[in-house]
Amino acid sequence: MNKDIIISQAEMVTRLLDEKQFTALRAELERRNAADVAALFDELPAETLPLLFRLLPKELAADTFVEMDSDAQRLLIKGFSDSELKEVVEELYVDDAVDIVEEMPANVVVRILDQADPDTRKMINEIMRYPEDSAGSIMTTEFVALRENYSVEDAIKRLRRTAVEAESIDVCYVIKPDRMLVGYITIRTLIVSPADAQIGKIMQSDVISVSTGEDKETVAQIMQKYNFSAIPVVDGDNRLAGIVTIDDAVDVLQDEATEDIQKMAAITPSDKPYLKTNAFAIYRHRIPWLMLLMVSATFTGMIITRFENALAACVTLTAYIPMLMDTGGNSGSQASVTVIRSLSLNEIRFRDILQVVFKEFQVSIMCAVTLAVCNFAKLMLIDKVGLMVSTVVCLSLMVTVVIAKLIGCSLPMFAKKLGFDPAVMASPFITTLVDALSLLVYFGIASHVLQL
Amino acid sequence: MNKDIIISQAEMVTRLLDEKQFTALRAELERRNAADVAALFDELPAETLPLLFRLLPKELAADTFVEMDSDAQRLLIKGFSDSELKEVVEELYVDDAVDIVEEMPANVVVRILDQADPDTRKMINEIMRYPEDSAGSIMTTEFVALRENYSVEDAIKRLRRTAVEAESIDVCYVIKPDRMLVGYITIRTLIVSPADAQIGKIMQSDVISVSTGEDKETVAQIMQKYNFSAIPVVDGDNRLAGIVTIDDAVDVLQDEATEDIQKMAAITPSDKPYLKTNAFAIYRHRIPWLMLLMVSATFTGMIITRFENALAACVTLTAYIPMLMDTGGNSGSQASVTVIRSLSLNEIRFRDILQVVFKEFQVSIMCAVTLAVCNFAKLMLIDKVGLMVSTVVCLSLMVTVVIAKLIGCSLPMFAKKLGFDPAVMASPFITTLVDALSLLVYFGIASHVLQL
Repeated sequence: MNKDIIISQAEMVTRLLDEKQFTALRAELERRNAADVAALFDELPAETLPLLFRLLPKELAADTFVEMDSDAQRLLIKGFSDSELKEVVEELYVDDAVDIVEEMPANVVVRILDQADPDTRKMINEIMRYPEDSAGSIMTTEFVALRENYSVEDAIKRLRRTAVEAESIDVCYVIKPDRMLVGYITIRTLIVSPADAQIGKIMQSDVISVSTGEDKETVAQIMQKYNFSAIPVVDGDNRLAGIVTIDDAVDVLQDEATEDIQKMAAITPSDKPYLKTNAFAIYRHRIPWLMLLMVSATFTGMIITRFENALAACVTLTAYIPMLMDTGGNSGSQASVTVIRSLSLNEIRFRDILQVVFKEFQVSIMCAVTLAVCNFAKLMLIDKVGLMVSTVVCLSLMVTVVIAKLIGCSLPMFAKKLGFDPAVMASPFITTLVDALSLLVYFGIASHVLQL
Repeated sequence: MNKDIIISQAEMVTRLLDEKQFTALRAELERRNAADVAALFDELPAETLPLLFRLLPKELAADTFVEMDSDAQRLLIKGFSDSELKEVVEELYVDDAVDIVEEMPANVVVRILDQADPDTRKMINEIMRYPEDSAGSIMTTEFVALRENYSVEDAIKRLRRTAVEAESIDVCYVIKPDRMLVGYITIRTLIVSPADAQIGKIMQSDVISVSTGEDKETVAQIMQKYNFSAIPVVDGDNRLAGIVTIDDAVDVLQDEATEDIQKMAAITPSDKPYLKTNAFAIYRHRIPWLMLLMVSATFTGMIITRFENALAACVTLTAYIPMLMDTGGNSGSQASVTVIRSLSLNEIRFRDILQVVFKEFQVSIMCAVTLAVCNFAKLMLIDKVGLMVSTVVCLSLMVTVVIAKLIGCSLPMFAKKLGFDPAVMASPFITTLVDALSLLVYFGIASHVLQL
């Protein structure tokens, strides 16, 4: 966990390596968890990895390999002999193997598939056929399948044979000879049931499954909703194709949250860790949005130009433009971000729009009045700009806050309804739009009240 | 999942209820999952719930109760007889019971604890002692504990006895007579091991545990990192106190992401779903930040006032204020939000600050040049404002973008270092700060170049 500890560990490993104390080194690595070994490797010079990797016991080696980043994986594969590669590939769970294969250049993929045994190769190819964000693409084909006519004793025997390979044995799935999914049984039920009980009699037949084409975020949300540790994935004919396990679902939920956050800040999402992304890639993810928003902001400038004469007649008004624009922008983002997150978590839907708009209207009135009262006091007592200007600024502030909240809450909902990503309708867009509107309101009110 | 389907289901249930078809109704409810029944109840009038709830089988009733919101729970408890309450409480997992108790007013808590059997009551009270965000507060005390001297056969016998109560049996924990945690064994290993093997010999002794006082977010991140479905929680003397299961960890991760998003949009976090929160509560979560940011924005206004004469001399400059402020704000938020999320995911730490600043500096130079070139062309060819003004605007734009990115990436890191929440250093704060700086830069450059 702690990066500083990893660093000092890295120094120790380097020292052992320099002193060629391989037995001590092996013992040192062996007692660690795969995720920790991978974090440690990340801190070490690339040229030491092939040697260190060979010191790891087979299973730990494979698990560590899965946890490493794709650059390091590619480097290791390059150094592997065919038989070494075969050993690693055979220890991998199929879904992990697919993740690795998807990140590799074509020539490395060919080598990996060559070394995989025919069954594994078939499974890898099968999963790779599914679209990138589908349930099929994150499922594993290594699960325990039982038949209705098995006894509990048969089932436990089968578990003994397949448990080592299966990724999750918490829940076993019951299928017909044509692989049609008919039920499930937890290992808990198996353990507490008499040895001669028939699976078909004691299984749960109300099994909740998802289709291979289902969006992986939806799958993860279903698993969270029902507290599932695994969910079966079926094809169009309700035949069991695989299972999605909770560890992959957790990663999906975290990635989706990160993506939403990036979109809300006007960044094209990327799932690569920040420190591993080079500056040019970061630039490419950010510049289109900055450019687009810069162009939109020039419209706001055009509004100012149009009211140049009014501003020249009452320069004091200029001083309140930033406060109006910022407060409007912040009010709008509060509403939009709240609605976007609620949409992501399925807490609200488009049909709730009237309820949402009404709630935001109430909130905006309360916020508008509070802000305007404070601001009026400040304008009169501290800035001493006089009653008329104070009234113009505070009236504009109130109208801006209300408009900002209403736009902020409704735009993401319309975006979702129209099939766009609501997260894109967050702060930057709302801010740009509200900026322009707040100036129109401001100059409109100023023209009338001050008769500029 | 689909709210529209739930609606039509609600209509069907209401019809069955009106026609007093209780057997059909029970059959209809019984075949559903607890989360679905709770969602259905949410759509039905409150007065029908006590009757519907009594139709549910015992276990489904308890599971449904857990999934309902606290208002509905309170209502149901009010209507329960003591024996009904006892039945529900006894079916609950201890961690769920604690969650419910924590949301109830004191008199309801007393009733619940009164009806819980002494063992359960003791466990609930124990968990409630832990601080709100600690591992202790989300753990369950219902797990399977084994001893080193057990044989696999003993262990499976024990599992048979306790499996029904335990929340997770995927992993069993091995403890000494004084409850000291010495290892773990997966049910997978138990199943594939010979019946006479000794637990102490086949268990894993490199067990990763967390302390009861550990922050629950850290616990969830550890579980995600190691792909754990459960993690043991130990007290100061390494005695096993409970386990945290993955379903609770997933909720923690999702809640933390929501909280970060709320803080980034200048909202005091709340874990209540949007539609269930009344307008005044939403107002209270938003107004302090709006107020604070409004006050800060007046400083930006003061800068404009200070340069009033310069602006009066060259009114054209006013038109580019929004574009400069917005682009600066957006550039800053992109950097700050990226860094905040990376900090949350433990991808970067304070000691990476130089690397982060250097990366953002490179990105900012690329963004600044691109934006300035486009803007220069627009100023010269479309706005036709002349070389001098174009130069002033584009130079200011470049300086602003670089400053914004540098502030955006470093402020959250310093906040974290100083023990503040980095998420608060997101868009709104950065925007306010960058607004002021961009104007200072703008007027500074304008004064020199245009000699105002």
